[in-house]
Amino acid sequence: MPPPETPLTPARILEATEDVLRRYGPAKATVVDVARALGVSHGSVYRHFRSKTALREAVTDRWLDQDHDDLSRIAHAKAPATERLESWLRTLFAAKRRKAGADPELFATYVALASENSETVAGHVETMLDHLTTIVESGIADGEFTMRDARATARALWDATTQFHDPVYAPRWSDPDMDLAFAAVCELLLDGLRAH
Amino acid sequence: MPPPETPLTPARILEATEDVLRRYGPAKATVVDVARALGVSHGSVYRHFRSKTALREAVTDRWLDQDHDDLSRIAHAKAPATERLESWLRTLFAAKRRKAGADPELFATYVALASENSETVAGHVETMLDHLTTIVESGIADGEFTMRDARATARALWDATTQFHDPVYAPRWSDPDMDLAFAAVCELLLDGLRAH
Repeated sequence: MPPPETPLTPARILEATEDVLRRYGPAKATVVDVARALGVSHGSVYRHFRSKTALREAVTDRWLDQDHDDLSRIAHAKAPATERLESWLRTLFAAKRRKAGADPELFATYVALASENSETVAGHVETMLDHLTTIVESGIADGEFTMRDARATARALWDATTQFHDPVYAPRWSDPDMDLAFAAVCELLLDGLRAH
Repeated sequence: MPPPETPLTPARILEATEDVLRRYGPAKATVVDVARALGVSHGSVYRHFRSKTALREAVTDRWLDQDHDDLSRIAHAKAPATERLESWLRTLFAAKRRKAGADPELFATYVALASENSETVAGHVETMLDHLTTIVESGIADGEFTMRDARATARALWDATTQFHDPVYAPRWSDPDMDLAFAAVCELLLDGLRAH
């Protein structure tokens, strides 16, 4: 436990919340549980998160957003769109696999939390679609990709790679043939986008 | 109940098995349950299916194979590969949606049975991949598709359309935007295959 003079920031509260989730599972992580873990009054936690729902949404959001910086950097990089798209999809898949493989119980806990917070998840998917749209738009602008509706294409790319990001498939992500499967799907999709 | 002189064929037994599953759920459908439903001795059923496992495998297989004739006809038709591929994927998705929508409980029962019979499911997927391979091979031979490994491409097509055939997604199949999503993924995949 940190010394009591450490300021109680939202980040510290969310870290403690993850700790509570890791130890006690998705049923726990109420404001009171988290306050107890931090050795503070629940009033202090309520000053940052007004309800159990707000706290659980925020911790789900933090988990989903973990890899957004890396993905955003790739989406907005100065590199050919084909290269960025392949790298973006590969980075997303690697991040998901890492999260699922490193701590399968915590992963399952977050999947359960995500299913309670469908708006948080929808917001996360929108951000992912924004990245993909950015890549597709710049590929079209550069003449690297054929002309098409960038947003609809982003959605199609997201849907066609479901197996590599939907946690439903997490049990398969450690299969030895998943890398080949990923490469084959990527290749087909990139061939579909490329201008001829 | 049919008159006792009707011969007890495997087809009649499997029909009765589906009936038992529909009425009593996946836990039922043992040889004894089915014999009772048919009004015959369980010995008569055992003459065709040597165990509960064999019976449950056979009824799962029958359910999975229901649309194989239609799909096989499309895969082997004399039509451009692009057209056959689009029609094959659309027919598969429509068949799955129909099965899921017509009787969601029976669908859930069969999904549970399928998860017990992973070898039966693997055999079914192989047949689906055979159809897709046939289409891709003929498209390559006709110069309609670019040269590529037909089997690996079949697998990539299967993987990229997961959302439209994996029963995990059945709850979404009635969403109004699923037709658009399907069309967008199909278009992207066909563009990837086409020779330029």
